Amino acid sequence: MPVGLGPLPELLPIKGVRLGVACAAIKKPDHPDLTLMELAAGTRVAAVFTRNRFRAAPVQIALRHLTAAAPRWLLINTGNANAGTGARGLADAERCCGGVAELADMPIESVLPFSTGVIGEPLAVDRLVGALPQAMDALRPDGWAQAAGAILTTDTLPKASSREVTLSGGRIRLTGMAKGAGMIRPDMATMLAFLATDAGLEQELLDGALRKAVRYSFNRITVDGDTSTNDACVLAATGGSGVRVDSDDDRRLFQEALDSLCRELAQAVVRDGEGVTRFITIEVRGGGSERESEAVAYTIAHSPLVKTAAFAGDPNWGRILAAIGRSGIDDLDVGRVCIWLDDYLIAENGGRAADYLESEAARRMAREQVTIGVDLGRGEAAATVWTTDFSYEYVRINAEYRT
Amino acid sequence: MPVGLGPLPELLPIKGVRLGVACAAIKKPDHPDLTLMELAAGTRVAAVFTRNRFRAAPVQIALRHLTAAAPRWLLINTGNANAGTGARGLADAERCCGGVAELADMPIESVLPFSTGVIGEPLAVDRLVGALPQAMDALRPDGWAQAAGAILTTDTLPKASSREVTLSGGRIRLTGMAKGAGMIRPDMATMLAFLATDAGLEQELLDGALRKAVRYSFNRITVDGDTSTNDACVLAATGGSGVRVDSDDDRRLFQEALDSLCRELAQAVVRDGEGVTRFITIEVRGGGSERESEAVAYTIAHSPLVKTAAFAGDPNWGRILAAIGRSGIDDLDVGRVCIWLDDYLIAENGGRAADYLESEAARRMAREQVTIGVDLGRGEAAATVWTTDFSYEYVRINAEYRT
Repeated sequence: MPVGLGPLPELLPIKGVRLGVACAAIKKPDHPDLTLMELAAGTRVAAVFTRNRFRAAPVQIALRHLTAAAPRWLLINTGNANAGTGARGLADAERCCGGVAELADMPIESVLPFSTGVIGEPLAVDRLVGALPQAMDALRPDGWAQAAGAILTTDTLPKASSREVTLSGGRIRLTGMAKGAGMIRPDMATMLAFLATDAGLEQELLDGALRKAVRYSFNRITVDGDTSTNDACVLAATGGSGVRVDSDDDRRLFQEALDSLCRELAQAVVRDGEGVTRFITIEVRGGGSERESEAVAYTIAHSPLVKTAAFAGDPNWGRILAAIGRSGIDDLDVGRVCIWLDDYLIAENGGRAADYLESEAARRMAREQVTIGVDLGRGEAAATVWTTDFSYEYVRINAEYRT
Repeated sequence: MPVGLGPLPELLPIKGVRLGVACAAIKKPDHPDLTLMELAAGTRVAAVFTRNRFRAAPVQIALRHLTAAAPRWLLINTGNANAGTGARGLADAERCCGGVAELADMPIESVLPFSTGVIGEPLAVDRLVGALPQAMDALRPDGWAQAAGAILTTDTLPKASSREVTLSGGRIRLTGMAKGAGMIRPDMATMLAFLATDAGLEQELLDGALRKAVRYSFNRITVDGDTSTNDACVLAATGGSGVRVDSDDDRRLFQEALDSLCRELAQAVVRDGEGVTRFITIEVRGGGSERESEAVAYTIAHSPLVKTAAFAGDPNWGRILAAIGRSGIDDLDVGRVCIWLDDYLIAENGGRAADYLESEAARRMAREQVTIGVDLGRGEAAATVWTTDFSYEYVRINAEYRT
C-alpha cells in the first residue's frame, strides 16, 4: 500500500499542451496503454535520460530526434519497454514515431518515443500504430489526469500535480505527471516523468532548470538501487501564457516551483514503491562536501539491513552506524557522528546516545513516515534522499513477477 | 539451509597452536562462547581487519597490541560484539586481554581480542574473565573442531578446513576456521577467520601472502553489501614444522594452498548466508581492468532484483543486463556484452541470445549452485565474486532479529 499518497489534486491545463490516450492492447486488451502529448509550435523541450549504459531503443531514438528537430509530439506506451531488443527495437521505435508523423503531417524527428513494460520482447508495433488515430481524436488540454493513469504499469496510484506562480510578467503554470519506478520495476521498467509549463524560457535556461530540479528530486530517490534502461524526464515550455522567465527573481521563482513539483512527483514514486510499508527520508548534514553527504545517504538507503529493520519498525542504530562507516569516507571521525530518528537523538560519539530509550526510538520508527537524520560533523554540506523499507512483499513482487 | 556445505573435514593440528573453549554465559548459559588460541613463542602473525570506519573496540585494541608485541594469544568471544560501546568498550576489551595476560604471565600486548555478537551493549567482562581458566585448561592441539563451533553466532554449520603441501624442505600444514558473515549479520556482527600454519615465513612474506589470499576470497564474497564493524582475518605461522618458505617455488606452493583454503572458507560463509537458497558464482571476464570487472561483478551481486530473480529460479537476463549497464563503465559497448548461465548463452549484442530458450535457461537457474558468466568484450581482466540469493527468509531474519 502506498504511504502518504492520496487521490490526484486538481491538474491545471497548460496552454499549448494537449493529451490523448487510447487502448492499443500492447500487452492486455481494453486498457489505456498509449498516450500522446501534443506540444504547440514554438515549444522548447528539455529532457534527461537514464545513465544506464543499456539504453532502450526509444531512449536512443528520442536522443537522436532531439538533436534533429524541435519536438512536437511525445508518444508513450506501457506494456513493453522495447529494451534489449537490438536493431529491431530501433526500427520498431522509428515505425511508431513514423505513425504519428504521418497522421500529423510532420517530420518523424518531431516525435519522441517513450516505452515502459517488459524487457526483451518485440513491441506490438501494428497494434500501437493502429491505435494512434484514437489517441489523436482524444487530444484535449485537460487530458492530464487520464494520461497520468495511462502511463502507469504496476504502480498502484497515478502521480501528478500542478503549481501556479506569479512572476513579474504575470501568472504561469506548471503541471507534471510521473510513473514508477526507476529502479523499482526493471521488467515493467522505468521511471517516466512528463512536465509542461506555459512560461516562456530560453533553451539554455530550460535545460539548466530541469537538470537542477531532477538532481534534487528524481535523482535522489531509490528503492533498490537498480537503475532502469528506460528512465526519462521531459520538461516542455510552451510559452502559451505569454509570460517570459527572464529576470533573476523570475528565474528563482520558476526554479522553486519546478523543484517543488519534481520533488512531489519523485516522492510519490517512492511512496508507491514496491512492497513499501514505510516512507523514509534520509537527511545527511555536516558533510565535507555534497558528494560525500550523498554517498552516506545512499549507503544507508541501499542497506538491506537498514531497510529490513525499518520494515520491522526496529530503531536499529547499529546498522545505520555500520552503513555510515562503510560509505567511503576514509578520514571519518566516528566520534563526531550523530544519528537522529525524526528529532530524537539515538547515536552520538560512535555509540548509543547517552539518554537513549529503546521505547522512545521504537515509537518513532513505528511511524509510517520517518526521517533518519545524520550529522557527520565535518562541514556544512548536506544531502537528502528518499527511500522505502524492504518487505516480504518486495521479495514476493520481484520473485514472482515472471513466474 | 546452507548450500553445498557438509560436515567438517579432518582438521590437521598445527604444531605450535593450541585451542581451548569455555562457556562464559556472555549472552546465554551453557553454550561455548569463549575461545582461546595459544601461539608458540616465535610465531609470526599477519592480520587484516574491517575497512568500516566504525571499528569495534576489540579491533582497535588488536591493532594497538599488534604494533607493540608479538601476539601469543587470540581471545575470541561470541554473544557480544563490543561495538558502538565508546570508551567503556575499549577499557572492557583491555580488561579481557588483561585476564589472559595475568593467567599466562605475559604482557597484555601479547593478547589480541576478537568479539562478535550484539552491537551497542556492554560486554559481560567479569563472566568472560571468570571463564578464562576453564579455556586455559582446555587448550589442546586438536581443538580446532571445537573452536570452529564455539566462534559461531547464528551460523548454522561450522566452517573449517586444512591443507597439506610438500615444499622443498618438507611437508607443511595449514588449518583455518571461519564464521559468518561479514555483511550478513551486523547485529551478531562479523566475519572472523583464524588460520595457522606450521611453516616458517618472514613477516613481510606472511603479510603479503595473507593480503593476496584475502583479496580473492574473503574480499570477494557478499550477501547484502553490509560490511561489519568487527571483521577480521588472522594468519599465524608457527614455524613448528621446521620447514621454511623461502624459494620462489615454495612461495608459490604456499600461496596456492593458502588461497585455496581461504577460498573454501569464504565460500562456506556464503553457502551458510542468511536465508540462502542458492549459491551464486559471478564470473566477469573480458574487462578493461580488474577493478571494472570487480565493479560489474559486485553490481550484479548486490542487485536486489537479480537476487530475488535468483530466489525464484527466474533466468531474468534483463535484470543482469541492467545491472551491468549501471555499474559505472562510461564507455561500455553494450553490443559486445555476453551473459551465460553456467555454459548456456542467454544474452548477446545487448539483448536476448538468438538461440535463447526460456526452458533451457530456467533449467540452469533452478540449480542450487549457479554461475552467472559475463564477458564485457573490452580486454583480458577478470574477477569472480560469490553471493547468495535474496529470500523471504532473509527479510524475516533481519526484520525479526531484534523483535
